[in-house]
Amino acid sequence: MDAGITAEELQLAARNHGIPLEALRHDVTPLGLHYLLTHYDIPVVDPATWELSVSGHVERPLTFSLDALRERPAVTAPVTMECAGNGRARFEPRPISQPWLLEAVGNAEWTGVPLRAVLEEAGVRDGAVEVLFTGLDRGIEGGVEQTYERALPLDEALGEDVLLAFAVNGVPLPPQHGFPLRLLVPGWYGMTSVKWLTLITVLDAPFTGYQNAHAYRWRADADDPGEPLTRIEPRALLVPPGIPDFMSRERFVDAGPVVLEGRAWSGWAPISDVEVSIDGGATWARADLEPPAGPRAWSRWTFQWDAEPGEHVLACRARDAGGRAQPDAAEWNVGGYAHTEPQRVPVTVR
Amino acid sequence: MDAGITAEELQLAARNHGIPLEALRHDVTPLGLHYLLTHYDIPVVDPATWELSVSGHVERPLTFSLDALRERPAVTAPVTMECAGNGRARFEPRPISQPWLLEAVGNAEWTGVPLRAVLEEAGVRDGAVEVLFTGLDRGIEGGVEQTYERALPLDEALGEDVLLAFAVNGVPLPPQHGFPLRLLVPGWYGMTSVKWLTLITVLDAPFTGYQNAHAYRWRADADDPGEPLTRIEPRALLVPPGIPDFMSRERFVDAGPVVLEGRAWSGWAPISDVEVSIDGGATWARADLEPPAGPRAWSRWTFQWDAEPGEHVLACRARDAGGRAQPDAAEWNVGGYAHTEPQRVPVTVR
Repeated sequence: MDAGITAEELQLAARNHGIPLEALRHDVTPLGLHYLLTHYDIPVVDPATWELSVSGHVERPLTFSLDALRERPAVTAPVTMECAGNGRARFEPRPISQPWLLEAVGNAEWTGVPLRAVLEEAGVRDGAVEVLFTGLDRGIEGGVEQTYERALPLDEALGEDVLLAFAVNGVPLPPQHGFPLRLLVPGWYGMTSVKWLTLITVLDAPFTGYQNAHAYRWRADADDPGEPLTRIEPRALLVPPGIPDFMSRERFVDAGPVVLEGRAWSGWAPISDVEVSIDGGATWARADLEPPAGPRAWSRWTFQWDAEPGEHVLACRARDAGGRAQPDAAEWNVGGYAHTEPQRVPVTVR
Repeated sequence: MDAGITAEELQLAARNHGIPLEALRHDVTPLGLHYLLTHYDIPVVDPATWELSVSGHVERPLTFSLDALRERPAVTAPVTMECAGNGRARFEPRPISQPWLLEAVGNAEWTGVPLRAVLEEAGVRDGAVEVLFTGLDRGIEGGVEQTYERALPLDEALGEDVLLAFAVNGVPLPPQHGFPLRLLVPGWYGMTSVKWLTLITVLDAPFTGYQNAHAYRWRADADDPGEPLTRIEPRALLVPPGIPDFMSRERFVDAGPVVLEGRAWSGWAPISDVEVSIDGGATWARADLEPPAGPRAWSRWTFQWDAEPGEHVLACRARDAGGRAQPDAAEWNVGGYAHTEPQRVPVTVR
């Protein structure tokens, strides 16, 4: 980190919750430990008056109450979600926004109604290209007053695993995760999964609103129009072993056999390899990889380490079946997105 | 904030969760929005093998399984908990530790077994002075390797409202709140309510361990042995009105009548007065105060504001029935504790 975190960044860090890395031990992230990014304020929504409207370029505009949605056939799936800005505070120079280090991820069991069935019921008309999802949260961003909304290409919106989710880990969505309903687009960065969802609008022309046209684009410099962020790049994280120092979070491990463990995920393809280094990335060895609980859930991995006294720097990196892999050095970009340089964990073995 | 937040502080801020201030709207803080400070790592505990031991200066040492505790008569109470370090990052110079601004608070419904009945069953022997509570979380702090443990004076431990809590908001404790059992000392700062509790030891001499003798003491300077932090000082917080700017969190409010709302609490006595200022503290007016849901729960307050276009700085402050009140300026101390200077919320009315 090349400069002190600013007061504005601290305000954001105090609001937006990351997963404490030791909680990567849980297959399903307990409620309250899943990462959380709220652009504006968490709205308080009265479920009795809340409605979901489906309109725009469709044959039959529809409106649903929460009860009506809950009565439809629902599915439950474990899904790993990550913020596109995860790792931002590790860039130098540091793009100023929510200063995530590594912890903007979680893996929850989401329950909801397949979006595809709802869109089919409304009847998407010829010429439709995108679907816009509008939440109830309102604020100002980049000088633009707006309700949070993001569009998704039509073919992605019709994907089999896209849900209108009303429950997480077996309970109704808590306020911070989008009560009473959120979009869930497995495999995509979290900004796609619009919370406090109230409008679905099928569009016959590409959406040009802030969150698609300005934010969440990979830009090499300020003049670059950029490419949209979409699916989650591969990443592995490890549970820091041993015990921490409170202030520095430095780790202390007793010499002897240690089972390192962690998680790995990619929004593009299943994870095929996780590698671990105990010498700061000079040499790498393969970890043992377990099958994920579902096609969009993270994979647990373990690595047997014979910890010898001294100073070590642990690292891990993932590759997916499509050949995407974590880079040795993340490529700087204006928004500070997709910093997937391998995690490094200094450890003192004693 | 007089200097940039350091990398170490950011690591702590990324782990330790505050309540987003708009969540003060909820009478009972939803799980996942309550503040959370974890000194070391959140341990994973197997409830089947976990035990609670009660020993030390007692007639009959006891051991309880989780089931045995759950079969005892239990009580449920709404309790406001706050971190002693809440406000630390507002001190200048800033003491380096978890950099809370204002958000280290929550009000949950805790369910558990009265500690007093358990201590009476064990039979506290004459000469006992304190009770030590030991958790399962281990780390290094101030150069001292330790398991987190804190002692409480015997008369406080025998207080009627002290609980061995196994549930919060109607569900078993999640890992981060101390699963399977935590101490809950209503009215005291949060460090007192030891999580992942496994040992209770009645002592016949004052405890001299780190968390009582070194940490959590109000010290004017490094040479001051200091006084222990105990009960929660009074504080009022308001829900920032209107809509925020994403990056700066600055607020924008439409002109006209606005109902300001917030919460106030004190660990010493019931809240008797809340005052609101719309001119940055130059003048104050009384807010309407609602009765709390219980003797240790926060009080809701509201204030009718006729918002006129322009720039305003809102502020609020509380006083309790014992005469304790928020100071105009917080008194600096080494650990950065009990910063209860009134919250100030700049607002643009348009």
